[in-house]
Amino acid sequence: MYELSIQTRDHCQFINIDRDVQQIVAKSGVNEGVCTIFVPHTTAGITINENADPDVVRDMKLILERNVPWEGGYAHAEGNSAAHIKASMMGPSQQVIIHNGRLHFGTWQSIYFCEFDGPRARKVWVQITPAVS
Amino acid sequence: MYELSIQTRDHCQFINIDRDVQQIVAKSGVNEGVCTIFVPHTTAGITINENADPDVVRDMKLILERNVPWEGGYAHAEGNSAAHIKASMMGPSQQVIIHNGRLHFGTWQSIYFCEFDGPRARKVWVQITPAVS
Amino acid sequence: MYELSIQTRDHCQFINIDRDVQQIVAKSGVNEGVCTIFVPHTTAGITINENADPDVVRDMKLILERNVPWEGGYAHAEGNSAAHIKASMMGPSQQVIIHNGRLHFGTWQSIYFCEFDGPRARKVWVQITPAVS
Repeated sequence: MYELSIQTRDHCQFINIDRDVQQIVAKSGVNEGVCTIFVPHTTAGITINENADPDVVRDMKLILERNVPWEGGYAHAEGNSAAHIKASMMGPSQQVIIHNGRLHFGTWQSIYFCEFDGPRARKVWVQITPAVS
Repeated sequence: MYELSIQTRDHCQFINIDRDVQQIVAKSGVNEGVCTIFVPHTTAGITINENADPDVVRDMKLILERNVPWEGGYAHAEGNSAAHIKASMMGPSQQVIIHNGRLHFGTWQSIYFCEFDGPRARKVWVQITPAVS
Repeated sequence: MYELSIQTRDHCQFINIDRDVQQIVAKSGVNEGVCTIFVPHTTAGITINENADPDVVRDMKLILERNVPWEGGYAHAEGNSAAHIKASMMGPSQQVIIHNGRLHFGTWQSIYFCEFDGPRARKVWVQITPAVS
């Protein structure tokens, strides 16, 4: 298993982690397989979406905030229930196919670490399972 | 493949299944890998979120119900379309990394079976894929 | 790795791809494992839900549109931010267990390719990772 460290800077922030995950895949030596990228936190998630226009990520954060406002009359005393459900909506992990020794993406895709209650020091765990040859 | 049986008691209920899944991982003898936890139902899902304060799960259910009210002028005659979309929003499966022979979680994380149209008798399927050594 | 081609016909459309994925699983010769179905696009996703009553899928599209309206005062110039977030809400991939050489589903489950900004020519990638025997 591999571990990445991430320092987020905003309360809600999407961070492209392609390069770090690609380095792990290269180190593994696996040519064909699946890369599982897992967030060991409950107020952050992982998603895959467009990397070309930064407005896409800005709109995604806006839409999530409209659907799950930070202030919502929630019971949880810590006050960050919105972050918990956003984390589950994006998901605690994503799976990316490894093909020819590299993360195999569509043209516009990147992996985003989704911070929903930052800034914080965060971790990402990566595990690689080989495919049938 | 391994199978768990779960009896839900409420219409909408999140049930911590860590212990059952951990037992399966131990039985498998796999030290490094990925554990896929899959729900073979269309009105229930799986998520990973906080296990410390039960108010987090309560708020998550509240927020999902606000976004997807049970009564919504839906077409599906069975009347449970809200449960179907909530299941897809949380997801039919989750992947947890196995490290040193155990499910590898963050401090506050647990696996939750999410019942959205109970009470019912449910199943959970588990498959374990080994990582590169 | 395996690739499927899909031509969508509507702006928002859920297409059952069970048969195509099952053929890939059969060709792989894997008896026990996990099948990862991945969409290399950022305005389409994958989900698993009911295949019996087509009204379920109709209601799911309706509920997603209510939560994420196409017109929303978004920044992204291309105008399809709603499609991007819907793609992340359903997810860019799903994992289905392979058991006894076949996709192992619940009675009512099917895999749906979710088009959120069609019609377009799309791809789906499939990778198969074997389980411990």
